[in-house]
Formats: sequence, structure tokens, C-alpha cells
Amino acid sequence: MSTVDDRTRAGRSIEAHPGVIDLNADLGEGFGRWTLTDDKQLLSVVTSANVACGFHAGDAVTMRRVCELAAARGVRIGAQVSYRDLAGFGRRAMDVPSDELAAEVAYQIGALGVFARAAGTRVAYVKPHGALYNRVVGDGEQARAVVDGVLLTGEPLPVLGLPGSRLLEAAAGAGLPVVTEAFGDRAYTDEGTLVPRGLDGAVVTDPDAVVTRSVGLAREGAVVAHSGREIEVRARSLCLHGDTPGAVLLARRVRAELERSGVRVEAFV
Amino acid sequence: MSTVDDRTRAGRSIEAHPGVIDLNADLGEGFGRWTLTDDKQLLSVVTSANVACGFHAGDAVTMRRVCELAAARGVRIGAQVSYRDLAGFGRRAMDVPSDELAAEVAYQIGALGVFARAAGTRVAYVKPHGALYNRVVGDGEQARAVVDGVLLTGEPLPVLGLPGSRLLEAAAGAGLPVVTEAFGDRAYTDEGTLVPRGLDGAVVTDPDAVVTRSVGLAREGAVVAHSGREIEVRARSLCLHGDTPGAVLLARRVRAELERSGVRVEAFV
Amino acid sequence: MSTVDDRTRAGRSIEAHPGVIDLNADLGEGFGRWTLTDDKQLLSVVTSANVACGFHAGDAVTMRRVCELAAARGVRIGAQVSYRDLAGFGRRAMDVPSDELAAEVAYQIGALGVFARAAGTRVAYVKPHGALYNRVVGDGEQARAVVDGVLLTGEPLPVLGLPGSRLLEAAAGAGLPVVTEAFGDRAYTDEGTLVPRGLDGAVVTDPDAVVTRSVGLAREGAVVAHSGREIEVRARSLCLHGDTPGAVLLARRVRAELERSGVRVEAFV
Amino acid sequence: MSTVDDRTRAGRSIEAHPGVIDLNADLGEGFGRWTLTDDKQLLSVVTSANVACGFHAGDAVTMRRVCELAAARGVRIGAQVSYRDLAGFGRRAMDVPSDELAAEVAYQIGALGVFARAAGTRVAYVKPHGALYNRVVGDGEQARAVVDGVLLTGEPLPVLGLPGSRLLEAAAGAGLPVVTEAFGDRAYTDEGTLVPRGLDGAVVTDPDAVVTRSVGLAREGAVVAHSGREIEVRARSLCLHGDTPGAVLLARRVRAELERSGVRVEAFV
Repeated sequence: MSTVDDRTRAGRSIEAHPGVIDLNADLGEGFGRWTLTDDKQLLSVVTSANVACGFHAGDAVTMRRVCELAAARGVRIGAQVSYRDLAGFGRRAMDVPSDELAAEVAYQIGALGVFARAAGTRVAYVKPHGALYNRVVGDGEQARAVVDGVLLTGEPLPVLGLPGSRLLEAAAGAGLPVVTEAFGDRAYTDEGTLVPRGLDGAVVTDPDAVVTRSVGLAREGAVVAHSGREIEVRARSLCLHGDTPGAVLLARRVRAELERSGVRVEAFV
Repeated sequence: MSTVDDRTRAGRSIEAHPGVIDLNADLGEGFGRWTLTDDKQLLSVVTSANVACGFHAGDAVTMRRVCELAAARGVRIGAQVSYRDLAGFGRRAMDVPSDELAAEVAYQIGALGVFARAAGTRVAYVKPHGALYNRVVGDGEQARAVVDGVLLTGEPLPVLGLPGSRLLEAAAGAGLPVVTEAFGDRAYTDEGTLVPRGLDGAVVTDPDAVVTRSVGLAREGAVVAHSGREIEVRARSLCLHGDTPGAVLLARRVRAELERSGVRVEAFV
Repeated sequence: MSTVDDRTRAGRSIEAHPGVIDLNADLGEGFGRWTLTDDKQLLSVVTSANVACGFHAGDAVTMRRVCELAAARGVRIGAQVSYRDLAGFGRRAMDVPSDELAAEVAYQIGALGVFARAAGTRVAYVKPHGALYNRVVGDGEQARAVVDGVLLTGEPLPVLGLPGSRLLEAAAGAGLPVVTEAFGDRAYTDEGTLVPRGLDGAVVTDPDAVVTRSVGLAREGAVVAHSGREIEVRARSLCLHGDTPGAVLLARRVRAELERSGVRVEAFV
Repeated sequence: MSTVDDRTRAGRSIEAHPGVIDLNADLGEGFGRWTLTDDKQLLSVVTSANVACGFHAGDAVTMRRVCELAAARGVRIGAQVSYRDLAGFGRRAMDVPSDELAAEVAYQIGALGVFARAAGTRVAYVKPHGALYNRVVGDGEQARAVVDGVLLTGEPLPVLGLPGSRLLEAAAGAGLPVVTEAFGDRAYTDEGTLVPRGLDGAVVTDPDAVVTRSVGLAREGAVVAHSGREIEVRARSLCLHGDTPGAVLLARRVRAELERSGVRVEAFV
């Protein structure tokens, strides 16, 4: 795994500061005749759009349109890279050899890049999707492959992921800027990791609680863990969901409450 | 359909001159476990490589490797864009709406671009594949959609195609450089168009005849038509085939004979 | 093209009789994470379910579930065969060679058959989808290929299509039962063909008009053509749509009004 | 997981007997323009053909042709079911939820069934391919899902796999006949399991050794393990490979030597 040179590296690390937060969400997750995310609504809430690149979702027409809408609103465009798995929406972990995974990540970023540039902007960061996102929390080999894919682009693109993940470790090791993210609707362990989905209480469903936790994460860098203990979670970005009508409304409420609380909602690049 | 600006346009038209010829061939036409073209051998013969971009063939690992090999040899990299049709190898004409076709063409060029740049070079031209190549000879709407796809990249990429085709007409109309190509192994009508495959004698199978015709096309810009009459065919590039062992040997012979005849074998960009 | 034997043929032709109608609709048109049709609601309205078989829509889990729901309600299961085109939802006409089209049709019917049998029933008929449906109205070669695909199954499956289409002609010629269908929401020419989409007034959007026309088609075998003249349209099945909430409600109204008018709503097999 | 009824079960267990062997190989592993296996040559050697069903390889035309060739030669047709992974040729393990895997297995068997019946025969057994084959050696959940997929067909199809695998355990538990297989070109541990690929000496490359080991496995149910100790390996079928010219020649030699040694080469159904 090569690294970007030190001059690029210097001054590009993206720190989390309480009081400043980016809001990211998955967009463009339709395919051909099918739609999923309410892209227009979400683009009025978020500051960073994770755009599907065709491997788990995202046909070329949708990618183009989302890039145009995002650019028009000043929302940053991120490549939401995935395993090649339309049938499973990228939610089925796959044992992909490193060279294949790296090349497939680069392919997706390259394809999205053409639409970002056509819209007058560029791909500003990379975030793995679904099963790949979860896999690179602990799988160093796939994490390095994703980073190698980013490096193939020749651009020192920031990588968005979980604090403490092998992905961010590999990205930092390769000289790429890393951006930490947190979730207002997920339960945390005392160690600051997410309680795995499937366990009781892993997902916070009460909208008021989601709003409160989101504000706490953004303003104080803190959240109440599953145990009841308050823990520190430093994140530069909050992940919002938008694949249901209720989710979009909740995303709006989170943003409104963040702003009311004096938090600066701002993209990280 | 927008156009590239006039300064870019000026001085970029790529004329065919008797005595100078580019040799192009389709490469990287495998997919995953399957291979088809003998990429290494072909790269020692051609000056321009039409690289499959994943829609009719061409997985990401293959695209990356072919770009590296081509760059190492100074062979130009072209995006061989296709209908989305792995099962049919892009050989089944499709009524794709213009906005979809344009976006899919841009997607493919963008994906290939990342590997071309990683290899230290760039996508230097665009050539449609298979059924799309044939369709845009006469279908102005799809021809314009392909050109729109090229324009989306923001780069004034030369478009390679048949003289007199709607594709080259649309490309020229949009201010893109156009490059004409000829075939040493295809019969021509008196009007300089190809005798359709399926008709008797449409394909020239005698290797000696292919060599003679290739040299004539390159050195004099002329070939004996199906009728027996000699006609003028101005082409800046000759298309070679390489999907069988015999084809690679024949491609070698064509190049050797061109050089022996004093023809300058040279890429067009 | 082979034919089924004469004994099978005899007594199996499915006549249209005023006063008796089948209601068919497309179902199971999701794919993986994406859904489209409200399958449960539609299955309470129709008597025949055109189930997507994986080529334009329809993953295996959805196919299985739709077959179970349909079987539980006594709704007949039809194979809604399509071009292989997930990205275009089967709406892009393709020049597929006959042997490929026949084999792909058989493949889809075979795949659906396993779920129909698992649900205690069987595939009861075949209806082409989207661009293939439109293509085989006039393209005799593709029509015969579809019929060859049906014949490969070894079952004399009824084929559902437009009266006067090359598809029904080819099916009848091969000894397959044919079933004519009509549309309450499409304008007709004086010759009894559909006014092509894209022309003014091709689609009837007023719900009351759709209901009235549907009842007229089913009860009297007649409809007012675009010209204002009443014409005869003999159809054994009415095609309903269900990909929007409004469409499902309208489908319900059509069925209710048919029954109120004394029309017998009944599957054709 | 349901089971087939006891009467079906009784008398259908397929025992391995020294002196009698089935020869199976993967066939039809091309896709569209691409070919891999030399199907005609292999069909003159094997008694059971594992036919790719479209998920890792195997387009509909190929499936049809292989079924016709196999039926004409009296070779049994097996469904070689796989993860949905054309790009990875089914060699990348996937965490597919059980309901999806079961339905996808049934889908593949159903699709192949139509071509087997068209050729005058039927699908006679099921064998998982590639990464799925390896996964169900130890993964009980996926093993049960594969078996559930077989049960969905309603046919008590024999399942072919490794002795001691969770797959055969699940199949037997569900009342399906199970068939054990061995490999003449793989090293064995003292426990009778395969030495994992990647370890030194895992694959036996010397053709003479492959022949000797194959004969030993078939005639005596024994083979020399990696440790040098002779162990018992009871298998009713030997897996041959045919994706290289050398492999086909070797397969021929194995069969010839088996027959010369008095082993009866015979399908298991």
C-alpha cells in the first residue's frame, strides 16, 4: 500500500470539534425504475451526500441528477462505495480478494467523479456502504484494500468511518485525511463502539431521544452509553437516515435542533 | 447538446493522411474468471487500445492491468463504451433513451479514467463497441447521446468511428475531434460503406488479402470495393482483431508489412 | 418451431365471451431492497398475477412470497417474461437473437415454476413484459422465439397478449392456447389497436372513464375508439395497473363495478 | 426446515462401495461470449455433469446445449448452484441470509430443470459451487439454507458434497439422499479432510500421482494422506477438472485407468 506524500498530508487532518458538525446521509440509492431515498428532501438537510455508485444501487442517470442537485445546494459529494451486490443492496459481507476490492472501489469513485465534475464540483470524500462499512471496522485486509482503492485515484480523498475502525487506521496510515462519524440513533457501549444490531436496544427508535443524543454528540462530543454511563464520542460528522418519510422528518428535526442549540452545521471539506 | 469551446476545437481536428496510420484493437474484454483477448500480445502491435469498461466486458482488475500495460508501452488508452449487456457482450442493439445512454457512456469513461490516471496517463479517446458502434452509424439520436456522454466528461476527447457515420457527424458538430477508421478484413461498397455482415463476402478471411488491403488503405487511402472498383477510403486508424490466436498473428503481419511499406504507424493523439 | 400435439390443442382454445373477464396485473416487480407493486393489495383484486421472473425485476425471495400469496388466494400465476435488463426495467427493446430469447424465456418460466409448485400450484400462463410485450406485437421473429421458449417447457401454457399480435399468431400456430387482453386505460384506434403511448390521449387518465371503459370492454366487448366510433374489442382478460397507490384504488373500483354490472370476474384457466 | 417423507427416504441412501465410482465435473461454465470448460470433451469422460445455472456462470443458451449433449450421452445432469456472483465466478464467500440463499438455490434448480426436461431427462442431483461449496463444509446455517432450497423443489434430489460436511449432514437430516465425493488431485489430512488450498502440497500436480490416487480412492476407498499414513476415504463420486486442455487429457487418463483396474464407472442415480 503506497501513501500520499507528506506535504499533502500535513494540514489535512480533519479534527472533530465539539460545536461543529457535518451531517451526512446516503442518497441516490435507487436503481433504474426503483427509488428509495428522497434525495431532494435530504439535500435540504445534509451537508454531505454519500452517493451510491452503481454497485449496490445508483444508476448513471440518478448519479448524474444527484450530483447536480447536491452541487446546486453546495452539499459535498462523497462516493458511497460498496461490494458489487445489487440483489443484496450491498448488505451481504463478501470475501473479496484485496486486488479486486481495491480496483472496484477505484472504479466506483472514478465513475462518480465524472458526474461530480460535470456538476462543477468533485468527489470530496469516500464512505463505504453497508456490509463493507461494517466489515472494515475490524477487517484490516479489506480496510487496506478500500484505502488502496482510494489511493488509486491519485487524490488524497478523506475517508469517513467509525472512530477506532481499521478503515480509519489504514487511511491515516496511508496519509489520507480521516473523518469520524457518530450515530444519534444507535446505542453505544462503554468503549464507544456501537451495540451490534440485533441486540436489544441497539437502535434508538424514539425520535425525541434521537434528537437529544444527536445534539449531545455534536455539542459536547458525549452520549449516554447503553450502561447508563456518559461516554465521550468525538465525531466530525453525524449520519442521518432518509429511506422512510419519517426518517426525513426526523433528519429535519435533528438539524433544526442542532442549529437552535448553537451547533455549527458545516461540511468537513 | 452542448459543445466544447472554440479554442479547444481549433487545431484539434485529426486528419487522415495516406502514409500515416494508427492501429487500434479491442482489449481487456474478459470478465472476472473469463478472458478473451490476448492483451499482452496485442499491446505489442497496436498504438491505440480500446479498453472495455465493464458494461459488455471488463472487470475493474482487468481494466487496471490493461491500463498499466498500455501505459508502459506508450499505447494510447481509449474508452470502449457499450450498452449495459454482459450476457450479450454488447452485441444486441438496445433502444436506450438518450439521457440514459449519455449518462452510461459518461459513467464508463469516468471509471476507466481512474485506471488510466493511476497508470500515469489518461483516457485519450472514445470508441463505441459492438451493437452500439453499428447503431450510431445511422441512428442520429443515439449518436448524439454518445457524444453527450463524452461531453459530460468535460474533456474534448476524440471520437473514433466510421467515416460518414452519424456518430462522427454528431461529434464534429459538438466540437469534438473525430477520427476515421477502416477495416482491412471487411468488404466495402462502392460508396465506401461496409458490406453488412451476413452478406456473402462481407468478411475477408484470406490473411494475404487482409494484409494487402490494410497496406493499401494505410498507404494510398484506397481499397478494392466488392464490385471490383477501386475506391477511396480515408482513415486515420485501422481496426485489428485479436480474439483468436490466428488474429494476433495476422495483426503482427499487418503491422510488419505496413512498416516494410514505409507507412508510419503512429497513434492519432 | 415445434408444436404441441393436436390432442392437447383441441378443446384448449380460450375464447373471449362478453360478460366474463379475467383481471391480470404485474406483481412482484421489486428487486432485493426495492419494492414497486403493492402485491398484497393487488392479489385481493386480480384473478391472474403476472409475476416478474428476475430479468427485469423479481428476486427469488419475492417470487417465492408472491407465489405463496397468490396460491393462498386462488389467483393464477403467470410468468411475466422479459428481456434481461434490470437497469432498464425491461423497457428497452433489444435485438436478441432467437435462440437466446427462446432460452431466456424458458429459463424464467423454469425458475418461477419451482416457486409455483412449492406453493402447491403451477405456472398457468405466460405474458411478456414491457418492451418485449410491445416488440412481439409486430416482430414475428421475436414472437416465435418467445413461443419457442414456452414450448421448451413442454407444457402447453396459454400465452396472454394483444389481439392481432404476432405473438398470439405464433402461439396459436404452435398449438398453444391464446388469451386476448384489453386495457381500460388506453385509447384504441378504429382498427382495434392501441394508440401508441406518446401520442395525445393515448392514456386514459380520468378514473371514471377507465371504469366505464373497463365495464364496456368486459360486458359488451366494445369500447369507444379515439375517433368517437364504437368498436368491438374481444378480450378474455383486462390488464390492471398497480404500481401507485391511486392505481390500486382504481383497480378495486374497476373490479367492484364489473361485479355490480353482472360481469363474471374469472380466471381463464 | 421440512423433510421429505419417510417412504421417499427409505431405500434412497446412496452408499459408497469400493469398486464403483461416479465421475463428476463442472460444465457449462461460460457466460455469453465467454467459454471456459470444454463441455463436449468432458461429456465423453464423466457420468455426472455439474451444470452452471446462471449465478456464477451459465447463460440460458449454454445451459440448454449442455443439457442436450449430456442427455444424448446418458450423462446425469446436476444443478451446480452458486452465490449470485458473476464478477467473482462464485468464488467469494458471501453472508447471504438463509431465506435468500434457499430461494436462490431453488431458482437455479428450477431454471435448469426446464432445460433438462426439454432434453428428455431431469435434474438428478445438486452440488454447490466454489465458495458456497467450501462454506457449507462448516457453516450449518448456510448448509441448511441450501438444503431448504432443494426441498423447495419438492423433489428428493441427492446432494453431492464432502464426507463429514455440514451440507451432507443437513441433507441427510432432511431426508435427502447424500452422495460423498473425493478428489484425486487434493491432499488429505489424517482425519480425511482436504488440506486447505494455499498450504504447501494442497494440490497434487503430478499427473501420474493423480491417476494413482484416483484409482486408489475408487478401488479401495483409500488414499495416502499428507502425513504419509494411508487413510480411508469413502466416496461414491470422484471430482474431475476440465477447465484447461491438460485437465481434460488427465480426466481421460483417470477414467481409462479406472476401467483398466476393474473399477465400474457408473453414475449414482
